[in-house]
Amino acid sequence: MQVQDYMQTLGRQARQAARTLARLTTEDKNRALHAIAQALEAASPQLLQANAKDLEQGRARGLEEALLDRLALTPARIEAMLEGLRQVASLPDPVGEITEMRYRPSGIQVGKMRVPLGVIGIIYESRPNVTVEAASLCLKSGNAAILRGGSEALHSNRAIAACIQQGLAQAGVNAHAVQVVETTDREAVGALIRMDTYVDVIVPRGGKGLIERITQEARVPVIKHLDGICHVYLDRDADAQKALAISLNAKTQRYGTCNTMETLLVHQQVAANLLPSIAQDLLAKGVELRACEVSLALLQGAHLPVIAATEEDWSTEYLGPILSIKVVDSLDDAIDHINTYSSQHTEAIVTENYTRARRFLTEVDSSSVMVNASTRFADGFEYGLGAEIGISTDKIHARGPVGLEGLTSQKYIVLGDGHIRQ
Amino acid sequence: MQVQDYMQTLGRQARQAARTLARLTTEDKNRALHAIAQALEAASPQLLQANAKDLEQGRARGLEEALLDRLALTPARIEAMLEGLRQVASLPDPVGEITEMRYRPSGIQVGKMRVPLGVIGIIYESRPNVTVEAASLCLKSGNAAILRGGSEALHSNRAIAACIQQGLAQAGVNAHAVQVVETTDREAVGALIRMDTYVDVIVPRGGKGLIERITQEARVPVIKHLDGICHVYLDRDADAQKALAISLNAKTQRYGTCNTMETLLVHQQVAANLLPSIAQDLLAKGVELRACEVSLALLQGAHLPVIAATEEDWSTEYLGPILSIKVVDSLDDAIDHINTYSSQHTEAIVTENYTRARRFLTEVDSSSVMVNASTRFADGFEYGLGAEIGISTDKIHARGPVGLEGLTSQKYIVLGDGHIRQ
Repeated sequence: MQVQDYMQTLGRQARQAARTLARLTTEDKNRALHAIAQALEAASPQLLQANAKDLEQGRARGLEEALLDRLALTPARIEAMLEGLRQVASLPDPVGEITEMRYRPSGIQVGKMRVPLGVIGIIYESRPNVTVEAASLCLKSGNAAILRGGSEALHSNRAIAACIQQGLAQAGVNAHAVQVVETTDREAVGALIRMDTYVDVIVPRGGKGLIERITQEARVPVIKHLDGICHVYLDRDADAQKALAISLNAKTQRYGTCNTMETLLVHQQVAANLLPSIAQDLLAKGVELRACEVSLALLQGAHLPVIAATEEDWSTEYLGPILSIKVVDSLDDAIDHINTYSSQHTEAIVTENYTRARRFLTEVDSSSVMVNASTRFADGFEYGLGAEIGISTDKIHARGPVGLEGLTSQKYIVLGDGHIRQ
Repeated sequence: MQVQDYMQTLGRQARQAARTLARLTTEDKNRALHAIAQALEAASPQLLQANAKDLEQGRARGLEEALLDRLALTPARIEAMLEGLRQVASLPDPVGEITEMRYRPSGIQVGKMRVPLGVIGIIYESRPNVTVEAASLCLKSGNAAILRGGSEALHSNRAIAACIQQGLAQAGVNAHAVQVVETTDREAVGALIRMDTYVDVIVPRGGKGLIERITQEARVPVIKHLDGICHVYLDRDADAQKALAISLNAKTQRYGTCNTMETLLVHQQVAANLLPSIAQDLLAKGVELRACEVSLALLQGAHLPVIAATEEDWSTEYLGPILSIKVVDSLDDAIDHINTYSSQHTEAIVTENYTRARRFLTEVDSSSVMVNASTRFADGFEYGLGAEIGISTDKIHARGPVGLEGLTSQKYIVLGDGHIRQ
């Protein structure tokens, strides 16, 4: 019950802070971002000390090396955090933008004003840099933030929170604009995702399991990203060089990211021509290939070491050097396969054909759809959003990379001169 | 379990239909809307017969007169349905709109394309006209619809569904684009709001109790409208005539609507000047006045029959000829009162002061915020949306009246020429 009370208090304070944040000028917010950066810079030694404590406890508890790596702060990583803050400060402020003001026959003028969502709850893993990133995006978009990071990063997050507080105070911003949950009690997450009077939206960042659990239990709307089963489709009219470059880049530029290709689809008429050389290059990079019946025969015929794909492969996010390959009979088959198996994250077609490019763009129901470009481009920086709080595979509110604008909404504004309704 | 299976079948069919709907041209969709109108017109006698059966059963079951009135079809109401269909056909198609295409430093071109949400579940009361209205808005926005109307309208809805089917078939549109749930089993609603693989969003239309229940139990995102506790604030610099006209219109033009004013706020410096005449006119219209301490003294001093407001009045949606009145010390107090007690639906300020108008627009956190106009303007037709499926008091996705655009979302599209990420 104590945790519940604690979370309710954070919620109430966040709601109050959100009202004052809606009033801040762009300059106020940027000043706070720069002040936070200065505070973090000045406190670097303390941050590294606090982080060392987390790392030590993590090692004692036998945390995996990959988790320890994410948890670790270094002078270079602190510098990257500062750079991130300055970048967010330099982004245009989405709040207050007025659009579509039009006169109506009644004489009133109606349009939309972009406004903060209010209070955003962010639940994430033990990555201290996310604390700074999430705080900066929420602050710039005029939202109050309640940040719940992984318990392994508690000392680091507390040290960062102190710097954020210092920065807010220095810029005269409400201290509850950014609150870090300072308990490792798991009940805190349950409370946060159910406080629908105080929290307007939850953004979970973490593994699929965590996000599914949060989605199931939440009463507050969730902007979520489950997984990235991304496809590249090599059309009948694909340019061979582009097909090779994009396939390789989409699979091997980085294996662990959600916008990495997991399945390569190839039109039957060009499979024999395109697949062997692509497969060869992928194999040379150490990628395991799992092929459908047709491509299996084709690649084995070219004496390449591939294995047979199973039904499960089509819906698997490998996040590693594995690729499933399927030959399809037509564009329709490719689109059907994608709309059936993809996680609606990012899909690309390689083609020189105008009509099929247009159909692919229109009919593929994913948050990012591309022509002759690598799926790896699907992220906030590449799209020009400046930074992203996550990539949404939801269909309402925001799809794809969620930047500052995704943390806002639009209300209607009406200007009259004593107008009444007849 | 049978109901579960039935609903799963509807869901699966809707999902399949949604994919074909995404491909339809604007003309296809308009042809279907006109064909449905023709089918309804031709079947008017059958519609009236089916409706008579519903009305008879409703009377036998002792339905309230107001509910019977909503349930009733007349030739004029059928004509209004046809007119509604034609209007939706004449609205611009939001789907496919491409915006913000910009080149990025990497050379790719990134922008957004407006797309249907997919499958929309609509849960509503026993109002047969909603069946046609919801079907037409979903169809025009390229979404598949699963419609669950009140059980008292089952015969009417079945007859309407038959006409919709006829119209879809005639225009060559997938028969599952619009499906009417043909069971009165309450379990059907439970199934519908939990089928998150098949349904993308739920729009409930009905009383607050129904909507709260749905929101609590839903796994699918809900676009909801709970209540309308709307305020008009008469500022220190309010024009007396505008103040009177807007106050009267906002309260008395219609009592039962969600955009009707429920609380009148008045700046202390103008209360003595403005309130008595406004109160007099409201009383003359039969409105009961519930006043705060200050306004009570003021109005009783003017020998007007008012009663004392209680704390509960500030958060009550009367939906009838009752108004609560409160005198506030400042614009800040007015905004605080609104942001505390309003349901974030619609609020208006009456003022000639530029700075306070601007502050009110910016700081009031409601889906519609107005200057010198009656709250009664807050609806889809008045805003130029053409028609609305509801008014959202949510903060994510869509706020305020939800028209065709509110039933769509935006995906990212990326155009390249063989671009790969460095």
